[in-house]
Amino acid sequence: MSKPAQTPDPPYYAVIFTSLRTDLEEGYGATSDRMIELAAQQPGFLGVESARDADGLGITVSYWESEEAIANWRRNAEHRVAQANGLEKWYAEFFTRVAKVERARRFAK
Amino acid sequence: MSKPAQTPDPPYYAVIFTSLRTDLEEGYGATSDRMIELAAQQPGFLGVESARDADGLGITVSYWESEEAIANWRRNAEHRVAQANGLEKWYAEFFTRVAKVERARRFAK
Repeated sequence: MSKPAQTPDPPYYAVIFTSLRTDLEEGYGATSDRMIELAAQQPGFLGVESARDADGLGITVSYWESEEAIANWRRNAEHRVAQANGLEKWYAEFFTRVAKVERARRFAK
Repeated sequence: MSKPAQTPDPPYYAVIFTSLRTDLEEGYGATSDRMIELAAQQPGFLGVESARDADGLGITVSYWESEEAIANWRRNAEHRVAQANGLEKWYAEFFTRVAKVERARRFAK
């Protein structure tokens, strides 16, 4: 997921997911890819963008039409399994922040 | 900047800065470091976290007490010079989104 997300005009919602990885690789890449694929199929999904530094800090921001869409995604069964595995296996620590995007601008050459 | 930001309880504001780099390195690292140092000195600054993928997509999220604090930082003179250089030299494209953080959670082992 190495492109900026293209989102409609605000207002909409962002989930900012900041994480520090453990050293355990097993299952991480496949689950991470699957969660992005699955999120994109949910009602109200607007886009996602993700970057991870070589030293383990990652930031993934997903964009959603509404708080209801975020709540539905949080409760998705397959997502819940991945969340439980995430803290047990792949993440030493993570933060989730839900924010309402009020203004957005794009700058390009 | 390879640590998660430690922020107080919501509400507060986030500026999500998503960028695609050009190949030009000259001056980028020093200016980027200086902007993080300078931001941290501004009134209302709460924290910043940043990650860049090996292929050029970067996400930097800075956290602020208020919209006024964000407006003041946007108008900072040294920051304005860096912004102008940013699009001319270092970024092919970038997005800024201002969002109000309504909920936040931390998970750790």
